[in-house]
Amino acid sequence: MNIVDIPTGSADEQAVHDARLVLGSLVEPGSRRLYELVTAYGPVEALDRLAAGHESGPLAEAATLRLNGRPHAELAERLRERAERLGVRVLTPESGEWPARLADLRHISVDGPNTIDRDTYPPHCLWLRGPHRLDDTVERSVAMVGARANTVYGTHAATELGYGLADRGWTVVSGGAYGIDAVAHRAALAAGGLTVAVLACGVDRPYPLSNNNLFDQIAEEGLLISEWPPGTAPFKVRFLVRNRVIAALSRGTVLVEAAARSGARQTLRRARQLRRAAMAVPGPVTSELSVGCHEELRREPHEPVRLVSTVEQVLEEVGGIGELAPVPRGAARPQDVLDPMERQLVDAVPRRGGAYAEQIAADAGVSLRGALAILPSLVLRGHLREHGGGYARPLPARKKA
Amino acid sequence: MNIVDIPTGSADEQAVHDARLVLGSLVEPGSRRLYELVTAYGPVEALDRLAAGHESGPLAEAATLRLNGRPHAELAERLRERAERLGVRVLTPESGEWPARLADLRHISVDGPNTIDRDTYPPHCLWLRGPHRLDDTVERSVAMVGARANTVYGTHAATELGYGLADRGWTVVSGGAYGIDAVAHRAALAAGGLTVAVLACGVDRPYPLSNNNLFDQIAEEGLLISEWPPGTAPFKVRFLVRNRVIAALSRGTVLVEAAARSGARQTLRRARQLRRAAMAVPGPVTSELSVGCHEELRREPHEPVRLVSTVEQVLEEVGGIGELAPVPRGAARPQDVLDPMERQLVDAVPRRGGAYAEQIAADAGVSLRGALAILPSLVLRGHLREHGGGYARPLPARKKA
Repeated sequence: MNIVDIPTGSADEQAVHDARLVLGSLVEPGSRRLYELVTAYGPVEALDRLAAGHESGPLAEAATLRLNGRPHAELAERLRERAERLGVRVLTPESGEWPARLADLRHISVDGPNTIDRDTYPPHCLWLRGPHRLDDTVERSVAMVGARANTVYGTHAATELGYGLADRGWTVVSGGAYGIDAVAHRAALAAGGLTVAVLACGVDRPYPLSNNNLFDQIAEEGLLISEWPPGTAPFKVRFLVRNRVIAALSRGTVLVEAAARSGARQTLRRARQLRRAAMAVPGPVTSELSVGCHEELRREPHEPVRLVSTVEQVLEEVGGIGELAPVPRGAARPQDVLDPMERQLVDAVPRRGGAYAEQIAADAGVSLRGALAILPSLVLRGHLREHGGGYARPLPARKKA
Repeated sequence: MNIVDIPTGSADEQAVHDARLVLGSLVEPGSRRLYELVTAYGPVEALDRLAAGHESGPLAEAATLRLNGRPHAELAERLRERAERLGVRVLTPESGEWPARLADLRHISVDGPNTIDRDTYPPHCLWLRGPHRLDDTVERSVAMVGARANTVYGTHAATELGYGLADRGWTVVSGGAYGIDAVAHRAALAAGGLTVAVLACGVDRPYPLSNNNLFDQIAEEGLLISEWPPGTAPFKVRFLVRNRVIAALSRGTVLVEAAARSGARQTLRRARQLRRAAMAVPGPVTSELSVGCHEELRREPHEPVRLVSTVEQVLEEVGGIGELAPVPRGAARPQDVLDPMERQLVDAVPRRGGAYAEQIAADAGVSLRGALAILPSLVLRGHLREHGGGYARPLPARKKA
């Protein structure tokens, strides 16, 4: 484990791998323009064109600035060395364990002034710490995201769901942040399950520092992953860019607790855009930290977000056929076995003394014939007793001495 | 006020009124068969046919049993006298203040063995206590229903909604039961607003007894109404039969707190069947008393139940155009005014010391040209400051001495 994933195949394969590595380092993730270039020319030629100044525009200029005059082969070498030194693996779309699901990100870009909604394309490489194959780990996975300033209620809900999912063999994907993210990761680990933290910075310096023990445990028992090369700082915009990967890696996303402006709502939006299951946990209407969840649950039917209260309900959304959640029911009560007419007749029998069938039928508003057909059966089943030619309520059961 | 609503018109009108009164007393409310008879023959002839034995079947037999050999004119007389003695008004569909909305109940009957889902037709008469016209009172009204065993949370939610609706001039309709019903009525009264309690028993003996002070206040300041004549006992089935009237009188129904098996869910179902607004208040997933609400909110899009957290959101469902609820937003923060590229550039400026534009652009992953176009504006707006030929974070604001 923890070995650098250098393809052992042809020199071409090595060149593609290196080009992906360098592109992922020179260009901020998600870029539509880079995706177009790579689609048109392949990674190796796309990098050559950028490095040789054959491309113009902001993407080429930004990449050139970062390359800073170095040959890109040198940068590739340095990135590979750094990975090896840190015990970090690097995956590219050509790697065997690259999750096919990430390719869905090519469909959700939205035109407009907001680069975060435009530059939503798939990663070019992922840096990994942890002993598992990424594709297998996320095959059955659910993303759980939410507020950093979570409440006791949110902690409880995230723990129940995270533990329950992991306990049933599902991987919990989240962002490694304070609050709901950390609770979800911890709950999955507590269940002895798998969890994946998708970071917005280098996997060698996971943010926030206060989650360091958690990150160490995830690196040992789960997976820490990032699109950004080691050493990258967690700029704010990167969290929003990163969210698309959380949504794309998993079969569905659950929003556990979120204020109106929570960034976690954007992850849920990505899940909807990717046509993955989008779910939210309700909470007290008195809690500011549930307002974001409730707003998501108020979306119109063409933007469905499903309310989930239990692990079973989450699995119903992301699982296969046969994983339908049981509909909650209270305990059965004796009167449930009565149909409405039977119920009405029992109610029409006075609580003290008794009454004749005629009176009972009249009070119940049913025909005498109907009453006479039903009353004896109510006696047989213990709901009434015979009493002086008429009917009465059953005697109370005696307590045992 | 409190006068018996005897039409002052023709003898025909009086005969129709009396026939409705007697039919409403001889036959349990909602009957499909009676609705068919009255539609075919009119109320007067329908009653004659039932009383004269020209009809057969359970309905005729039950009515005959209740008539008990008396002429039906005598029963009408007695019902009118009782109403006068009790200070109760009687309305029929021919009365001026009969709410037209009740007629929608003729559309929701469902074939099958369950009489409660089949006998869902409009009332033939309503008995009223209270100083208001029924039609005006319910014109702008919302039904609020829920658990009898409500929690502190449900009490809070029902109080907020009931008070807020009444405060905005909306009438609160409910069932007068323990729990959420009573809280909703009380909240509306506390706001100085109108409330209507729709009972499943006679308005002279409202159930439950422990709400007697509440019922007295409703009879003085709102309306107590029932389909059943004075003296009728609240048999269990009658609550379910009654629910259709709660849903039909109001523009929409809100389920505030409900266990999985709550009867209040049936009222919400009637609202859906009537194509009125069906709403539910979410709550903690840890509360059994919110399970029913959450199950309603999990319905498929063709059976829509809308999540509501605030009075404004309720009014958006039942109100006219222009009553859209504001979308909750947190407070605006300074960084909100930055677009993603500006944000990324600010983040790329180190927190200590400064950096040149080239370094900032490279770290941010943007072109130098782009950075140089934006950085000065960030300085002007106070997000950065110039620093030794480059840029630095702003100095912390000094506290005033």
